[in-house]
Amino acid sequence: MSYFTHLECGYCGKKYDSDKIWNLCTSCGKPLLARYDLVKAKNNFKKEMLKERPENLWRYSEMLPVKNPSAKISLNEGFTPLYRTENLAKELDYENLFIKDEGVNPTTSFKARGLCMAISKAHELGVKEVSIPSAGNAAGAMSAYAALAGMKAFVFMPKDVPAPFIVECKALGAEVTLIDGLITDCGKAAAEGVKKSGRFDVSTLKEPYRIEGKKTMGYEIAEQMNWELPDVVIYPTGGGTGLVGMWKAFSEMEALGWIGSKRPRMVTVQSTGCAPMVRAFEQNTEFAEPWQGAKTIADGLRVPAAVGDFLILRALRESNGIAVAVPDEDILENTNLIGRTQGIFAAPEGGATLAAFKKLRKDNWIKDCEKVVLFNTGSGYKYFNLWS
Amino acid sequence: MSYFTHLECGYCGKKYDSDKIWNLCTSCGKPLLARYDLVKAKNNFKKEMLKERPENLWRYSEMLPVKNPSAKISLNEGFTPLYRTENLAKELDYENLFIKDEGVNPTTSFKARGLCMAISKAHELGVKEVSIPSAGNAAGAMSAYAALAGMKAFVFMPKDVPAPFIVECKALGAEVTLIDGLITDCGKAAAEGVKKSGRFDVSTLKEPYRIEGKKTMGYEIAEQMNWELPDVVIYPTGGGTGLVGMWKAFSEMEALGWIGSKRPRMVTVQSTGCAPMVRAFEQNTEFAEPWQGAKTIADGLRVPAAVGDFLILRALRESNGIAVAVPDEDILENTNLIGRTQGIFAAPEGGATLAAFKKLRKDNWIKDCEKVVLFNTGSGYKYFNLWS
Repeated sequence: MSYFTHLECGYCGKKYDSDKIWNLCTSCGKPLLARYDLVKAKNNFKKEMLKERPENLWRYSEMLPVKNPSAKISLNEGFTPLYRTENLAKELDYENLFIKDEGVNPTTSFKARGLCMAISKAHELGVKEVSIPSAGNAAGAMSAYAALAGMKAFVFMPKDVPAPFIVECKALGAEVTLIDGLITDCGKAAAEGVKKSGRFDVSTLKEPYRIEGKKTMGYEIAEQMNWELPDVVIYPTGGGTGLVGMWKAFSEMEALGWIGSKRPRMVTVQSTGCAPMVRAFEQNTEFAEPWQGAKTIADGLRVPAAVGDFLILRALRESNGIAVAVPDEDILENTNLIGRTQGIFAAPEGGATLAAFKKLRKDNWIKDCEKVVLFNTGSGYKYFNLWS
Repeated sequence: MSYFTHLECGYCGKKYDSDKIWNLCTSCGKPLLARYDLVKAKNNFKKEMLKERPENLWRYSEMLPVKNPSAKISLNEGFTPLYRTENLAKELDYENLFIKDEGVNPTTSFKARGLCMAISKAHELGVKEVSIPSAGNAAGAMSAYAALAGMKAFVFMPKDVPAPFIVECKALGAEVTLIDGLITDCGKAAAEGVKKSGRFDVSTLKEPYRIEGKKTMGYEIAEQMNWELPDVVIYPTGGGTGLVGMWKAFSEMEALGWIGSKRPRMVTVQSTGCAPMVRAFEQNTEFAEPWQGAKTIADGLRVPAAVGDFLILRALRESNGIAVAVPDEDILENTNLIGRTQGIFAAPEGGATLAAFKKLRKDNWIKDCEKVVLFNTGSGYKYFNLWS
């Protein structure tokens, strides 16, 4: 049972039918967001119902967009562990530090959530071929879910992407085209295939459901913290779908009567080598200018321009949050610190959140005793060459 | 609450105190097995109690050896998904084919189960330093749990081990020594450190608790199949701890009154490049001769001599099972088949089970409609070079 009713442009508010295939808003070119019948949902979907449900993101099905249960494509994604750190907390002399470990998702990253939802919804709507330009984890996740859905998958990657990312897609049956160029060139090549062959483009926020998968991270931290949100959430931000999704989830949960009005201060972390959101936040602009010459070891942060920039900035401001850039050296050092203290072989993006935490503590932006959640968005396995 | 009472040699039956540190039997040099008070357990530990417990292996705590709850070191290992295949089943025209996907465990392999238990028990008994000779996934798993337990970890690996396996251990804070030699040479180097510095050796079956972690795979397939075991279990066998562990779990569950006397036929799969158990099974011997010149792409199957050989062979025979060797070409092909049909980027050991399934179907050893479970024991990420 899903209370999904329609799509709505996140910028101009134009409404769209829930049973057709859409990408961006046809009026203003901005991302579409899924809307639900929150009144009906509030009356029927009680948080107590979750108790006996399986530990994956489909436990929140009523607030997810897939209507036909047989369309749900699942590899048991989500409901990842939220650890209250002990060794790390001791090392930092800070008590309430939590890590949400997304690296144990299928295909070892949080991308599984978004692609699980995008592919399931596309499957429900009869899509047979999907396509993505990607320099990293999204391509692997798409390949996995497309395989399970019986769809043909087309991946366009820069040819200098580390081998594990490419190998993964191939082993999962995707057709991989390596492009001699940047991710933007991959986008162009992918768009050509979309135009010619009618493939469905599942790029971040260019289709409306990945964010619905990602928002479950917000539902989960609420449930795992006994329906009391933390004070601060530190999130490594590339496309920002997860951050925007969680912010959406918090509103939905308040409308459902599951949580009160308390919100965490949302923190965007980027690398000093690619920090368009940090710059825009500091310059107080509505949108972010594309970053020139983007360069960082954290592949997930190498996103020069985010389609949902205004949504990210809006969430940061509404939450009294902040955007922080950290250098690559700090990223790797802190990834190792997570490893040797907590036994989590984290992605560099995870290390970035710890680097940001330290900086914000130093600046006293994070106060003693506040509850802070770091998001480790993937595992280190596909990035092993950073340590070699 | 644990019903663990004592250890008992799996060969000569000699008994050992449960509160001291042990490796192999001091009389006959064979592995020790954990024993429980099954009468008390039967009266108090009901399978209905599992329903609201978290989805990890600690749900079976009453039948696990750790007595002090605060000694439990957990990264949310176990209770991995058991998939009833659809696309793969269709492709093979065989209905009841299941895959137990161990690749989503922490450190991406089933080794997490065993090392979680070994490190937790060692932690309970006050161990501060652990050591392992390993050419693969066990080292990473040990490093992760040792980090979380605050222990110093020492890893001895052949220097030609693929980089991801080495990198993982280092990022998790272990001290890695690369040895110019075979795994047996690593064993010697590790033994020296154990002798000199009093480190605890957690090699497979040389300490008694890894098998207790691994046996939870048996509890899980029973629970996930609604307490009716499958007809056939196909298991990639290196050290064989998982197979022996599951066989032990089945007996325990019958004693608990959770299942009846029906048992699956257990199948050991090895590579034609290293098949000591297959040879011993066919020659009907009690022990297996070491395999000379072991060579296979499936690192987990490159085990020339298993300490628990007699326990593996015993389980195969008691279950009316069989041992099958498959060539490396078939292993890789079938790993890809799992990927493109089910969206699981499997380890080559997982592909080996599918190759064995096909062979046993062809020989009509597996009949129509039998329920068959394949064990994918890890993920393909650390083996990406096989596809490069």
